[in-house]
Amino acid sequence: MVEDTRGSEPDGDGLWRCGANRAPLNPVSLLLRTAQTYPGKTAVVHGDRRYTYAQFHDRCVALAAALAARGIGPGDRVAILAPNVPAMLEAHFGVLMVGAVLNALNTRLDPPAVAFCLAHGGARLLLADTELGGIARQAVASLEAPIPIVDIADLPEFPRVGEIEYEDFLATGAADFVPRIPEDEWHSVSLLYTSGTTGNPKGVVYHARGAYLNALSNALMSELNSRTVYLWTLPLFHCNGWTYPWAVTAVGGTHVCLRRVEAGAVFDLIGREGVTQMHGAPIVLNLLIHARPEEQKPLLRRVDIGVGGAAPPSTVIARMEALGFRVTHLYGTTESYGPASICAWQEGWEDLPGASRAALMARQGVRMLAHEALIVADPVTLQPVPRDSVTLGEVLLRGNAVMKGYFKNGAATAGALAGGYYHTGDIAVWHPDGYIEVKDRSKDIIISGGENISSLEVEEALYRHPAIMEAAVVAAPDAKWGEVPCAFVTLRPGAAAVGADEIIAFCRERLAHFKCPRYVVFGPLVKTATGKVQKFQLRDTARRQLATAGEKE
Amino acid sequence: MVEDTRGSEPDGDGLWRCGANRAPLNPVSLLLRTAQTYPGKTAVVHGDRRYTYAQFHDRCVALAAALAARGIGPGDRVAILAPNVPAMLEAHFGVLMVGAVLNALNTRLDPPAVAFCLAHGGARLLLADTELGGIARQAVASLEAPIPIVDIADLPEFPRVGEIEYEDFLATGAADFVPRIPEDEWHSVSLLYTSGTTGNPKGVVYHARGAYLNALSNALMSELNSRTVYLWTLPLFHCNGWTYPWAVTAVGGTHVCLRRVEAGAVFDLIGREGVTQMHGAPIVLNLLIHARPEEQKPLLRRVDIGVGGAAPPSTVIARMEALGFRVTHLYGTTESYGPASICAWQEGWEDLPGASRAALMARQGVRMLAHEALIVADPVTLQPVPRDSVTLGEVLLRGNAVMKGYFKNGAATAGALAGGYYHTGDIAVWHPDGYIEVKDRSKDIIISGGENISSLEVEEALYRHPAIMEAAVVAAPDAKWGEVPCAFVTLRPGAAAVGADEIIAFCRERLAHFKCPRYVVFGPLVKTATGKVQKFQLRDTARRQLATAGEKE
Repeated sequence: MVEDTRGSEPDGDGLWRCGANRAPLNPVSLLLRTAQTYPGKTAVVHGDRRYTYAQFHDRCVALAAALAARGIGPGDRVAILAPNVPAMLEAHFGVLMVGAVLNALNTRLDPPAVAFCLAHGGARLLLADTELGGIARQAVASLEAPIPIVDIADLPEFPRVGEIEYEDFLATGAADFVPRIPEDEWHSVSLLYTSGTTGNPKGVVYHARGAYLNALSNALMSELNSRTVYLWTLPLFHCNGWTYPWAVTAVGGTHVCLRRVEAGAVFDLIGREGVTQMHGAPIVLNLLIHARPEEQKPLLRRVDIGVGGAAPPSTVIARMEALGFRVTHLYGTTESYGPASICAWQEGWEDLPGASRAALMARQGVRMLAHEALIVADPVTLQPVPRDSVTLGEVLLRGNAVMKGYFKNGAATAGALAGGYYHTGDIAVWHPDGYIEVKDRSKDIIISGGENISSLEVEEALYRHPAIMEAAVVAAPDAKWGEVPCAFVTLRPGAAAVGADEIIAFCRERLAHFKCPRYVVFGPLVKTATGKVQKFQLRDTARRQLATAGEKE
Repeated sequence: MVEDTRGSEPDGDGLWRCGANRAPLNPVSLLLRTAQTYPGKTAVVHGDRRYTYAQFHDRCVALAAALAARGIGPGDRVAILAPNVPAMLEAHFGVLMVGAVLNALNTRLDPPAVAFCLAHGGARLLLADTELGGIARQAVASLEAPIPIVDIADLPEFPRVGEIEYEDFLATGAADFVPRIPEDEWHSVSLLYTSGTTGNPKGVVYHARGAYLNALSNALMSELNSRTVYLWTLPLFHCNGWTYPWAVTAVGGTHVCLRRVEAGAVFDLIGREGVTQMHGAPIVLNLLIHARPEEQKPLLRRVDIGVGGAAPPSTVIARMEALGFRVTHLYGTTESYGPASICAWQEGWEDLPGASRAALMARQGVRMLAHEALIVADPVTLQPVPRDSVTLGEVLLRGNAVMKGYFKNGAATAGALAGGYYHTGDIAVWHPDGYIEVKDRSKDIIISGGENISSLEVEEALYRHPAIMEAAVVAAPDAKWGEVPCAFVTLRPGAAAVGADEIIAFCRERLAHFKCPRYVVFGPLVKTATGKVQKFQLRDTARRQLATAGEKE
């Protein structure tokens, strides 16, 4: 039972505001309800381990009790560096149960970057999977004031680096610990460092109100229910798994853990656990499409997959559908608790030819329920652009699922939230049906001879080439035009050899000539941990390679 | 677009609270989103009339504009006296769009009772269906300060009594009116007078926060989605239709209006509109079960029906399932925005024999998501009873979907919300699985020779008798035992004649003898507009009939 020390106060006209009719919104209460409602239902599956909701609840409370016994309480930061294992889900409740702030770290960071986050966030304790123990130890060793490491020994083959193992740590708290939900729903619950394409990462802070409301919004928009079996293909450190730890728990669904996204494991778990839903970046979809035949298994029922991070190309949608998945495009940012828009399905779309339908489905769509406004507008005047499918503007957001700001960086917060909107930095058009379509990151637009070229439009053309598995287009400097498009492509395994000239010719059949790549670079694409292509690195490469090429010419 | 005049304020650590990241929770925003997302989807069906969400939105805004043109604004009360017609749904948004408070009146009230509500609530305007025009006119005529009546002329045969017709009224506002959502989510949105078994009705007040959160909670608990087709068998004046006007709208479902609950019309609409879900008191289920063969139509797909107001007897559950319905028992009060608990389905129940399963399904269940606590406890010490299925306690509630209080009745509010819980007045046991089961209203418990008798338990036994369609049991005074059970029963149409002695004998085979009815009275049961049996009237009848019987003896 949650503590309640609130008094009641007259509200005029004989009406009162008191503990009876006002409770702070907090994701913890979602677990408390589900553990009471479905104590025997499977909450978490991880390989052969299975926890019921009663057990999951008790483990979260035990984590909270252990943190409290260490003196960790309201407002303190607790960091975690782990893949999608049960401890990661438990931290999403246990840390909040003492009023502390969960700082989930990107598992692909190097020790100095982890150290930066720990120092900037002022973490009091680090929960670290032993596979990442080396990074954790180095990062903590470089801190001015070291903090304790708790080892999550999910795989026995990795050495311990911390002072206690997670399962032992759970036993160190008081047996009669009662979860504490802070009275103020504006209370911070999460701190997430963005990957940051330049400079130091910024710490995005979520509040309890937003986490709760976004979880309910996601549950409704994704049609989650107590029969949902959710496979964790989306990294939990990414926007707290888009708040799905709380959303799936709210409805009493089952979480299926996944240490590493591998096609064989994904198809196995879909079949074995009866997975109904999953999320991921386009790279996850590519992985499933290009799985080896012995890894792919036919789906016994439709699986919903939400894709975010970049628009799914039409060929990817078609191939996923052929495998038995239903693809929904979601769009958002870390600052918006993950997806802020959804390409909501409309009646009649099922009758459209595949290509037209895929073009509609690849749009970013309309606002999620937790957001009050999603507009495409002039970022200075805030004047919305016409819904004409052509005029470019910035995507602006407003609502309860926008961050509190950047931790200890008021200047960046003020810029991001200027004028009462969160400025996403994404450039889009607005369609007559109210759907938005992102054309580019503002910094990824290519300006060639005064014309704007959307790198996404060129990429969509490249994806139609049968030999191309992945493509990214960036601006390359050009003496005459200012900038010209430069394509980076990864060929499909086993595809016939194809040259740059052939690819450029392929594009010229489909795009205005000024939009076609001037250069084509072959090889793997540099990506962030969340599967986003790091275009700033590709731009560097383009600049350097062209300089070299220029010297040769 | 909602107006936003909020400034932003530093929140410490570089974090801000401003219009970008905090929006007041208000049901109006649910319609705004759905109208943007599904403008062409059918929102409302009423006979041959159909409105898309764009049209429904525009009509709600027009209502708001017309109210604003009359000078009606934040905090003002607007009353409505109407069956489940489109104007009733539109009032649930339009009135809120000027920040006013919707006062939906019970359509079975007589003119003095309507006048009491209008005067006590201080309504500025009355929207009244012309079928109820006589009542509206008489009630308004008796007010010290008359208020305008707007006629909802849904049926052309009834005379106009107001100064303008609803459709004409919609045209009187400014064409460029913009909905205004009050900044404070604690703002009142609804005033509902409880039927009140004794004394004057009390005015239950809802806030915007509770209405929004309860709508989302209902949408999740009922698994509503954009394919939902919701038939309005539940009176909209009852707890604002349990907040389903806002819940169904939130997901973009379709509302199917229904002026009058008649079995033939219900079965017709289920087939014609593809109804997926409906709600009602047990009387609605009885109506469908006992429909004439020519009225009943086979269901083409399962229809979910939530039943509240009283536990559905096991025979009713069985017969509804045989017709193709899935029955879910819900429990709540006007003070809790309708259902506060749901008899959530558990894995494995489908394998139980019918009678055991029906017994589980007839329980009141576990808390809905919008409530933070639902306990069975000593109402004074607030100490929960053991979960032993036997110990009686009062049902206490706490959470965001509990009323602000009783309008202008602080003493009643203080009593109802004492100790930080809403006191329902219902007496229940708590089962080991966490489900509660209401045994009686505290005032309906029969105390016979010092033993508590649950009138519901006796009624359940009576419902097993094949000739009995409806049954209600109340206390009758008794010189020796203090009180004894007196049964009121309605026989099934066409059932063989059955005498009191036979019914009492039937009960004695199934209940402890002291629990069996001492008297049986045949005839129709007096009910409230929401289908609840008015036991206080039955108690009066029992007292009078026994006095007469005593004289005769």
